[in-house]
Amino acid sequence: MKEQTKTRLAALRAKMNETDSGLVVLAPGSHMDWLIGYHPHPDERPCLLLIGPQKEAFLMPALNAEGTREHTDIDFYNWSDAEGPLEALRLALAGIGTEKPGRVVIDETMRADFALLLIDNLPDDTARDFTPETLGALRMRKDRSEYELLKMNAGIADRAMQAAFSKIRPGMTEKELAAEIRAHFSSEGAAPAFWIVGAGGNGAFPHHSATERLIEEGDAVVVDIGGRKQGFPSDITRMAIVGRAPEGYGQIHTIVERAVQAALKAARPGALAKDVDDAARKVIADAGYGEYFVHRTGHGMGIDGHEPPYITATSETVLEEGMVFSIEPGIYLPGRFGIRLEDIVILREDGPEVLSSLPRDAHIVQI
Amino acid sequence: MKEQTKTRLAALRAKMNETDSGLVVLAPGSHMDWLIGYHPHPDERPCLLLIGPQKEAFLMPALNAEGTREHTDIDFYNWSDAEGPLEALRLALAGIGTEKPGRVVIDETMRADFALLLIDNLPDDTARDFTPETLGALRMRKDRSEYELLKMNAGIADRAMQAAFSKIRPGMTEKELAAEIRAHFSSEGAAPAFWIVGAGGNGAFPHHSATERLIEEGDAVVVDIGGRKQGFPSDITRMAIVGRAPEGYGQIHTIVERAVQAALKAARPGALAKDVDDAARKVIADAGYGEYFVHRTGHGMGIDGHEPPYITATSETVLEEGMVFSIEPGIYLPGRFGIRLEDIVILREDGPEVLSSLPRDAHIVQI
Repeated sequence: MKEQTKTRLAALRAKMNETDSGLVVLAPGSHMDWLIGYHPHPDERPCLLLIGPQKEAFLMPALNAEGTREHTDIDFYNWSDAEGPLEALRLALAGIGTEKPGRVVIDETMRADFALLLIDNLPDDTARDFTPETLGALRMRKDRSEYELLKMNAGIADRAMQAAFSKIRPGMTEKELAAEIRAHFSSEGAAPAFWIVGAGGNGAFPHHSATERLIEEGDAVVVDIGGRKQGFPSDITRMAIVGRAPEGYGQIHTIVERAVQAALKAARPGALAKDVDDAARKVIADAGYGEYFVHRTGHGMGIDGHEPPYITATSETVLEEGMVFSIEPGIYLPGRFGIRLEDIVILREDGPEVLSSLPRDAHIVQI
Repeated sequence: MKEQTKTRLAALRAKMNETDSGLVVLAPGSHMDWLIGYHPHPDERPCLLLIGPQKEAFLMPALNAEGTREHTDIDFYNWSDAEGPLEALRLALAGIGTEKPGRVVIDETMRADFALLLIDNLPDDTARDFTPETLGALRMRKDRSEYELLKMNAGIADRAMQAAFSKIRPGMTEKELAAEIRAHFSSEGAAPAFWIVGAGGNGAFPHHSATERLIEEGDAVVVDIGGRKQGFPSDITRMAIVGRAPEGYGQIHTIVERAVQAALKAARPGALAKDVDDAARKVIADAGYGEYFVHRTGHGMGIDGHEPPYITATSETVLEEGMVFSIEPGIYLPGRFGIRLEDIVILREDGPEVLSSLPRDAHIVQI
C-alpha cells in the first residue's frame, strides 16, 4: 500500500471513530481517487470499496480484478457476470467485520442501484450518512502536492482565456470560440472540461454552454472555462466586450467586481462559508440587483471540479487553511447580458491566495 | 412538447400502468435524453424529472431553470441554493399527485444522494424498482432514426480502426496508437469515447486502457474503440498482429471467431439473452478455454454505450426485433495475450444485422 493511502486511510478511520461510523463505502470516482490514487473502470457493474474500522475490501467485478490488482493490494471479493454481486457483497461485509456497522457513510455520487444494493444488505436500523463529515472533510484541506497541481492547471486556464481573448471577432459563433479554447487546453496537454461562451443575452443563462449564435459588435461575452491535467481541474470566468459595451455594462461590472472583493475579504480561517456568500450577496443586493444573482457564491475544487466546501447562503462549514474554492458572483439580466467574475482561491492563514494571474477587468476586443 | 416526447411519454405511462408503478423519477442523463431529448446540466444539485400517471414535473435547481426552459415546457418546481430542494420536491410530488405512488421507478444511474432524498420523502411502504421493466424495456427497441445514428457511428469506428491498423508500428507505445485513434474520431466530428489498446500481455486485461508499453514485433494487440457523434456511440474490437503471431494465436482466434458465429446464430427474436451467451460460451468451454472467458458475451447499446439488454449467462430478457447489442466473446491468457472480437448488431426478424463492415480476421502488420 502506498504511504499516501496509508496516511489517508488512517485519517479517515479517525473521522469514522469521531462520527461513530462503522463503515464507509466508495464507488469508482473521485472519493476513491483521493483515498487510493485510482479507481477501477466505472460502469453498471457494482464495484465498491468497503472500509471498516480495521479492515478494508473491494467488491469487484471479476473482469476488472486483474487490471485493478496492478494498482492496489486491497483484498478483493470478486463476482462474475453470471453470479451477480450479492453473495460477494455479503462475504466482503463479513470479511471486514461490518455486517452491522451501526452507521454507514455512503459515497453520495455512487449510482442509486449500487447504494440500494448496499442498503438492502445492511440491517434496517443502520443509520445513513454521506461523506461531508468524514472523507469530505478530509478532502477539503489540500496538501502541498494538490495545491501545486491546481496552480499548474490555473496557469493553463489563464493562457486558454488569453487565447480566447486574442481570437474573438465579430461574426464568429460561440461554438467557434469554444473550439479555440478547447484547442488551447489540448495544446498544453490538458483535457478541455467545459467551455461556456455566452454572448449578449445568452450570457444571462449561468449554465449556458456555446451555440451557433454569432458574436456581434456590442456584445458582452461571458467566458467560463476549465480543463484537466494530471487529475486536477481548472475553472475561471472572465468577461469580454466586443468593441463597445452594451448600455449599463460598466456599472454592473463594477458591482460584480466589488462583490468579488467583499468575498475575498470575508474569506478567513474561522469564518463560515455563508459569511463569504453573505459578503458578496450584500454588495449586489445593496446595489439593487439581488434578484439577478441567482446562484451561490462558489464551490470547492480539488479532484472534482465541484466539491465541498460550497459557498452558499446557508452553509455552516467553518473555513480552514488549505481549503480551495471559487468566488464567482454574477448578475444576469435576461435579454441583455450576464456578468460573472470567477477566481479560484486557496485559503491561507491571512486570507485567500488567488490562483489566477489574470486581472478581472473586462477584455475589450478592438474592432 | 415535441411529438417524439409525447409518444414516448404515452408509451412510458402504458408501462407504468402494466407494472402498477405510480411514479417514475429520472435524473439528468440518458434516460431523460431518450424521453425528452435533453437533460439539464448534471451536477450535485438535485434535478429530477417526476412522471406521474397523468402529469409530470421537474424538480429544478433555479439557476438551470431558464436554460432548460428553452428545451421543454414541462412544469418546473424551482429551488435556490439558499433554500435547498426539500420543499420544492414536496410541492412537485403533490403537484403531480404522486405523494403516495405505491411503487416508484428510480433511474438506477442517478446519484445516491438524489435517490435517498426522493426515497426519504415518499411513504416508507413505497415499493422500489429500477427502470428495466418500464423505460428500459422501451429503450431497448430502437426505431429507424436510432438505427441510422448507430449505423453512421459504426462507419466512423470502422474507419478509425482502419486508421489504427495503418499506423501500428513496432516501437510505438499503446498510448501513441490510442492518440491516432482519437485523432481519427475527431477528424470525423466524433468525440473519442474509449481507446483500449492492449499489446501482448496487456491484452489479457479485458478493461486495460493504453499505457507507455511499447508495441513490439510478435505482439497480438487488442484494439477496442468507440466514439460518439450526434448523441450516439460506437464500439468495436478487432485484433492486430505485429509481424508474426505469438505462439498458439491462430487456434485461439479461430475459437473466438466460432464463438461469435455461434452467438450470431443464436440471436433470434424470441430467444433469451442467456441463449446467446450460452452459445458463445459453449464454443469456448468445449475448446477448453471456459475459465479464460471472464465476462458476459455482450451489452445493449443506444444512447448509452452500455445499456440493456445485457447478454449474460443468467439474463431471461426475451430478444425482440429492433434490439441492438454487442457480441464480444474473448479469451484472455494471462502473461501471453488476449483475443476479443466484438460486433454491434441490430436484431431483425430473421436474425442479426452486423453494423460494422470490417472482417473479424486479425490484421497483420507487415514489418
